[in-house]
Amino acid sequence: MLALYFSGSKAVLQKNYPEPMVRPGEALIRVRLAGIGKTDIEIIQGYMGFAGVLGREFVGDVIRCNSKPELVGKRVVGEINCGCGHCKRCRVGMPEHCPNRTVMGMLQRDGAFAELLTLPAQNLHVVPDAVADTQAVFAESLAACYEMLAQRPDLPGKRVIVLGDGKLGLLAAQVLANAGCDVSCIGKHRRKLDVLAKRGIPVRLESATAPHNTPVVVDCTGSPSGLLLARRLVEPRGLIILKTAIASNNAIQLAPLIIDEVTLMGSRSGPFAPALRALESHSIDVDSLVSGVFPLAEATTAIERAQSPRVLKMLLEPPQAA
Amino acid sequence: MLALYFSGSKAVLQKNYPEPMVRPGEALIRVRLAGIGKTDIEIIQGYMGFAGVLGREFVGDVIRCNSKPELVGKRVVGEINCGCGHCKRCRVGMPEHCPNRTVMGMLQRDGAFAELLTLPAQNLHVVPDAVADTQAVFAESLAACYEMLAQRPDLPGKRVIVLGDGKLGLLAAQVLANAGCDVSCIGKHRRKLDVLAKRGIPVRLESATAPHNTPVVVDCTGSPSGLLLARRLVEPRGLIILKTAIASNNAIQLAPLIIDEVTLMGSRSGPFAPALRALESHSIDVDSLVSGVFPLAEATTAIERAQSPRVLKMLLEPPQAA
Repeated sequence: MLALYFSGSKAVLQKNYPEPMVRPGEALIRVRLAGIGKTDIEIIQGYMGFAGVLGREFVGDVIRCNSKPELVGKRVVGEINCGCGHCKRCRVGMPEHCPNRTVMGMLQRDGAFAELLTLPAQNLHVVPDAVADTQAVFAESLAACYEMLAQRPDLPGKRVIVLGDGKLGLLAAQVLANAGCDVSCIGKHRRKLDVLAKRGIPVRLESATAPHNTPVVVDCTGSPSGLLLARRLVEPRGLIILKTAIASNNAIQLAPLIIDEVTLMGSRSGPFAPALRALESHSIDVDSLVSGVFPLAEATTAIERAQSPRVLKMLLEPPQAA
Repeated sequence: MLALYFSGSKAVLQKNYPEPMVRPGEALIRVRLAGIGKTDIEIIQGYMGFAGVLGREFVGDVIRCNSKPELVGKRVVGEINCGCGHCKRCRVGMPEHCPNRTVMGMLQRDGAFAELLTLPAQNLHVVPDAVADTQAVFAESLAACYEMLAQRPDLPGKRVIVLGDGKLGLLAAQVLANAGCDVSCIGKHRRKLDVLAKRGIPVRLESATAPHNTPVVVDCTGSPSGLLLARRLVEPRGLIILKTAIASNNAIQLAPLIIDEVTLMGSRSGPFAPALRALESHSIDVDSLVSGVFPLAEATTAIERAQSPRVLKMLLEPPQAA
């Protein structure tokens, strides 16, 4: 099958990549559409030391699933963390933190930039009919934004600044605004920020905010400068949520965190159910985030394009079965 | 008066240091006993760029107080952060985070290694009769331990490892154990850990704990290695409380924090009321923490001695009025 394989140093399109083995409990899925995320680009730059098929965001059709045959024929999205099922964390419902986990497109498991992929049946979520493929492909990123609310149910009602106008920043700002936070977003690109401005979320190109005055700052910049700005904006006893996977050797000084009693919270994968509900009700604008759809055969071009600061989400479409 | 003055580069005993001016709203206090804390030593090593009389922990007698004359003759301890009284944070009861604050013995305000000191009357707490001077002097450090419970009321019932068997670690472990946490302490000195072992708190000289298995880790080591060990011990979605003022250029990598969704929380000065109640009921052992009492005239020797790993709390006694 066609797949974008990352050797550990280079992403190469392979025309005859072997079709995946379907292990017990897993489903075989034909990919309809996959999304290129910032993490994929970081992985190509060496983050995680992964080798395998890239791709973490997808929507596809289940074509085989012995353990849950009712899924066959269904259009699904999937959680990328695959727990061992036996350890303490899997038993308490935290497979995304299983020490033996594989992670699709990231750790010991091939990803979605291919015609076919496999995932455990329990990782799959059926996509409601009202959600288009180009919307469903955002489920993984959107779920990661809902993770903030799962971790901190006290966020609604709070004043929050989201830093960064990339895909994740635009999704995070919308999720938090819908949840009742008093959100504004600081970014660098007027056209990206307009996605939020159209929805009544205040946006700024500058960071001329009063320093040390914001209860919650969410860093979605994916840049080492994001945390520095967050530190400048957050008020004493405030919360900084680290939302972007940062591969770079970012480092922070601890003494000022202690003096101001600031809390720093890492936040990663999240719950798919609220993400799919939001997509079904169209309460989050993801359509404005799609910058282009490329055939999987042109994946390397699409990945290059995805790194342009003007581009939001690039999608990849594998060849579809006849 | 006799005072230990820090010039910004050197701590020098001065026999004729000017007596402090008593500003409106302030009380003049004759120091009975002062405690040497780790922060004092960090300040001498250049932390905060302070110049002035050192000393943050004390018990003393109010000898003048125009704004609250009922305090005169009372034995008191005092909060070291002095807010401006006018800003937003002072108005919401957070003077310890006032951007214009002075901090006794640390920032724009002379400290307690002297015969006399001044503090705003509202910073003072009358010491119950049942509390000896050598116990009252721990009020500030103990209050800082109660701050953890003020910040995270969900700590009781949780499994907590305290790192460090210095004064703060031994106090923090006792405070958390009394609050109903399942506490153990990892330290380097059998004799210091014995303070906790005698009270039934499990202690260990080694860190041979299963990694990534502890819900809450409190770093009281005052050493850059503390956070590294905390990171190794804390479980995914766990909490690391940074309890020691760290002057050193400690730095942490952020990606692992995000992957494990760890929360890092700075914690500083705290509420005096629970600290004084604990001292009054003798539910916290502070007596075992006193390593020696030196006359203020021998402050430099006492400070040297305080830096020995075998020593816990060194106290300083200014000359008492006839």
